[in-house]
Parts: sequence; C-alpha cells; structure tokens
Amino acid sequence: PIYVVTPTYTRLVQKAELVRLSQTLLHVKGLHWIVVEDAPARTPLVSTLLAQSGLSFTHLHVETPPELQRQESDPTWLRPRGVEQRNRALQWLRENRQPSDPGVVYFADDDNTYSLRLFEEMRSTRRVAVWPVGLVGGVRVERPLVEGGRVVGFRAGWRPTRPFALDMAGFAVALPLLLATPRARFDPRAERGFLESSLLSALVSLDQLEPKADNCTKVLVWHTRTEKPKMKQEELLGPEPNIEV
Amino acid sequence: PIYVVTPTYTRLVQKAELVRLSQTLLHVKGLHWIVVEDAPARTPLVSTLLAQSGLSFTHLHVETPPELQRQESDPTWLRPRGVEQRNRALQWLRENRQPSDPGVVYFADDDNTYSLRLFEEMRSTRRVAVWPVGLVGGVRVERPLVEGGRVVGFRAGWRPTRPFALDMAGFAVALPLLLATPRARFDPRAERGFLESSLLSALVSLDQLEPKADNCTKVLVWHTRTEKPKMKQEELLGPEPNIEV
Ligand SMILES: O=c1ccn([C@@H]2O[C@H](COP(=O)(O)OP(=O)(O)O)[C@@H](O)[C@H]2O)c(=O)[nH]1
Ligand SMILES: O=c1ccn([C@@H]2O[C@H](COP(=O)(O)OP(=O)(O)O)[C@@H](O)[C@H]2O)c(=O)[nH]1
Ligand SMILES: [Mn+2]
Ligand SMILES: [Mn+2]
Repeated sequence: PIYVVTPTYTRLVQKAELVRLSQTLLHVKGLHWIVVEDAPARTPLVSTLLAQSGLSFTHLHVETPPELQRQESDPTWLRPRGVEQRNRALQWLRENRQPSDPGVVYFADDDNTYSLRLFEEMRSTRRVAVWPVGLVGGVRVERPLVEGGRVVGFRAGWRPTRPFALDMAGFAVALPLLLATPRARFDPRAERGFLESSLLSALVSLDQLEPKADNCTKVLVWHTRTEKPKMKQEELLGPEPNIEV
Repeated sequence: PIYVVTPTYTRLVQKAELVRLSQTLLHVKGLHWIVVEDAPARTPLVSTLLAQSGLSFTHLHVETPPELQRQESDPTWLRPRGVEQRNRALQWLRENRQPSDPGVVYFADDDNTYSLRLFEEMRSTRRVAVWPVGLVGGVRVERPLVEGGRVVGFRAGWRPTRPFALDMAGFAVALPLLLATPRARFDPRAERGFLESSLLSALVSLDQLEPKADNCTKVLVWHTRTEKPKMKQEELLGPEPNIEV
C-alpha cells in the first residue's frame, strides 16, 4: 500500500483542506492515510472527518513542544512545521509493520495539491523515488536534474548544493528501507531547508535516487498554500458554535 | 445532470486549482463541467487538462472587457470576477439545451473547496436551492436563516438585507427555470455584493428558496483562496519553458 503521512493542525481552513485532500486520496487504490494532529489529543473534527471519508486510515496525535512552535510573528521559514508529527508516523510504522511488508511512504502536507498521476508514479519505488514540485522555494519548479536516467543534482531556488535539495512533497520512501534503518528520522533541529536531507541522508546516496515523472520533467504536485481567511465581521454577528466549519 | 460552471484565468496556481477541483468533480455521477476561460482564446493548458480529466465537459472562453478588469492595485472586492464567463455559460446552456431538459446549474469558482455531499444536496433542486458557505464575507459561516422549513433571511457579515445575501457558492438553479427566464443573467455592473442578487431576483422570491444541508446548518462548501506564490528566485535560475506548472 501507499502510506500517506499528513501532519495537520487546528485553524480556520483545516476542515476545508482535509476534505479536498481526502477526496483526492479516495481515488487512489491501496492507500492508507496516516493523519497526525499537532494537538494534545485527537480532535472531534478530524475524527469525524476521517470516519466519514471512506478511506483506510490511522489517526494519531502529538503536540509540537512549545520551544519548537512557530510564533504568529515568526517568518514562515524560521521553523519547519509538522516534524514531530511525521516522526510520530514513522514510529507507528515501525511498531505496526514488519520489515518484509511491502509499501511506500509519502509525506503529504494538508495544503498541497496532488495529481492522481503522482500516486501511480510512486507505487514502484524501490528505495527512494523523486520528482519535481511546483511553486516552491521561490521558483515555478524545483526538480532533480537527471542525466542518463540518474539524478546528478538539483534545480532549486535556494542552496541547490544541499545533500538533497528536495521539498517534502518531492520524494517517497520504500517502507522496507525505512524499517531496515531504525535511526532514519526527521531532525527537528535541522537547519532551514535541511529537514528532508536529515531523513534521506540516512537512507540513500544521490546516485541511488529513482527519478519518476518522465525523468523529472513533469509537475504532478504543487506546493500551494491557502490564505488565512479574514474574520472581520465575526464578532459583530456573534458566534454560531453549533455549526462546524 | 449537474452543470458545474467554472470561470478560470491564467496565473501560477491555475493548473493546481483545476487539478484538485477536477479530481473532486470526478467522484460526482452525472456531472457536466462547463469551464469558461477569461482569455482571448482557449489555452493549451486548460484544453489538455480537460481532455485528460475523465470528465464530461464543455470548454468556452470570453475575455473580460478591459474596462471591467480588476487591476493588481484594486482591492479584491472592487469588481466581481468571472461575471462575463458565467454569462457565457448561461448563453451556451440556452443555445444547447431544451426547456424540458432536466438539470441543475451550479457556479463553482476554481479556488473554493467542495464537499462531495454538496452535489448530492443540490440534485433535488426544483427552482433555487440554497445552503451555507464557510469562510466568506469576513465570517466563519454565511447562511440562510430557516424557520419552519422556509428561508426567512440571511446571516451575513455584510448587508444581510440584500435581496439575496448569498455567495456565488451558496446556491444552485434548476435548468428549466433558467431556460424559462431568458432575461436572467449576472449584471457585470451590479454593485458590490449584489451580483448574486442580480441573477436570482429574476428567478425566485425569498420564500421560494429551497433550504438544503439540514436546513442550512451544515457547511459543505468553503470559500478558500490560494496564496499567490512568491517567485523571488525564478529570475536567478532562468526559465524552464518546457515544463508546464
Ligand atoms: O503548527 C503547525 C503548522 C503546520 N503543521 C502541518 O505541517 C505541514 C506543513 O505546514 P505548512 O503547510 O504550514 O508549511 P509550509 O506550507 O510553509 O511548507 C502541514 O501539513 C500543516 O498542517 C502542523 O502540524 N503544525
Ligand atoms: O480576472 C479574473 C479573476 C478571476 N476569475 C475567476 O473568477 C472566479 C472568482 O474569482 P476569485 O476566486 O479570484 O474571486 P474571490 O475569491 O475574490 O471571490 C474564479 O473562478 C476565478 O478563476 C476570472 O475568470 N478572471
Ligand atoms: Mn504547506
Ligand atoms: Mn475565490
């Protein structure tokens, strides 16, 4: 199966994001959704949504420790988000799956846009598969550069010389490789832009990467971000606490 | 069938928006997607996307006349967007469908979020059906107020006394009613917030509205907006014109 790992946190657009993502995932055969809430407990909103989604899922939670939380005033790049949550999913896989179990693990943030074709591309991952990501890092496309079927470097707006200059949405990992490498995890204290490298460096070398999406020439995932809605009139009208949004 | 009318225009996130919307619509039985580009001609990007979508569709275009176009510097509420495009779709329906043809027409912007349950709710529309919209007009929920199964007013952050204080995403119209009322169209010069009323006033009175979504107490559509991506590094790297994003 494809294990899709999604960190998520409470905010106005959370339900909208999870609804549209779940409706995309619902088209994908053999998918298991691991949703990890950044919260002290599983919330009723996410629990109900998952129960009604029609998907096979696991619902976990772990709160980001206060010292690693991004403040409203911090720039968005200061701290990677969703790190503890992705590590919680890795732990679940290690506790609940056998090294011989087949599968592919993909880290899918709740706000990105995924083409169905992406999931077909990642199914054949043997170690680590990679592909382009649209609208990320200040460029239209970030992507692995491929020569003769091998990845030889990266086109990235920022520090293309990082060990793996890839966005979280730009790779998938074979489950057996993850389970065979217990120390592989995301480093919550990794420097800006080095979070993906902190996991991947423990798993593969550059020349082992498997380029997908027509040798990394097709964009099948977009790093979209959703505007924070303005709620200027809400106080005027008074709350409607019984209506879930 | 359900005719979903979507205006769309060229920008960085266009393909991402249309991909995720098409994947939602692909779950809906008996749906016909009318996509109307705000462009002087149909573009290859949208043409290819529609051809590969698996959906039944009609692809139209009409450019918004310069004097009605919103400028980058204008506030977003200054001019309603997508108006000529929705009217173009109405024209197509009037030219290609018979007054006796069954159907429901829904105006679905490319950036909103739609729950699959919404389409089931609108199927039974006899004249005009209405329901809540999340995250719009500066409030969590805008919605028709229902008493004894009838709509008696609106909860809206702004001018709830408008004839129909509804967002474009908050109603659907029966095709026979539209075809029986040839003058019904969107007024491109309608005052801010009165665009929906300009169509609906020609079709129904308040007490004829059909409340859906459990008497307008469930949110099944969200007026999400997608951030404009920053492309700070693009010039540095030089373009990759052969990769569609
Ligand atoms: O405090 C937070 C902020 C974000 N996230 C999740 O972590 C992922 C990445 O966050 P975001 O999309 O905001 O990051 P960016 O778009 O800036 O890369 C998303 O799935 C979020 O829902 C989280 O779990 N806790
Ligand atoms: O110049 C434009 C701007 C917008 N739109 C379309 O019109 C609809 C409403 O626009 P938008 O979502 O930007 O409006 P808002 O979110 O502010 O209501 C969307 O389907 C857009 O793709 C368009 O056809 N031409
Ligand atoms: Mn994101
Ligand atoms: Mn919009």
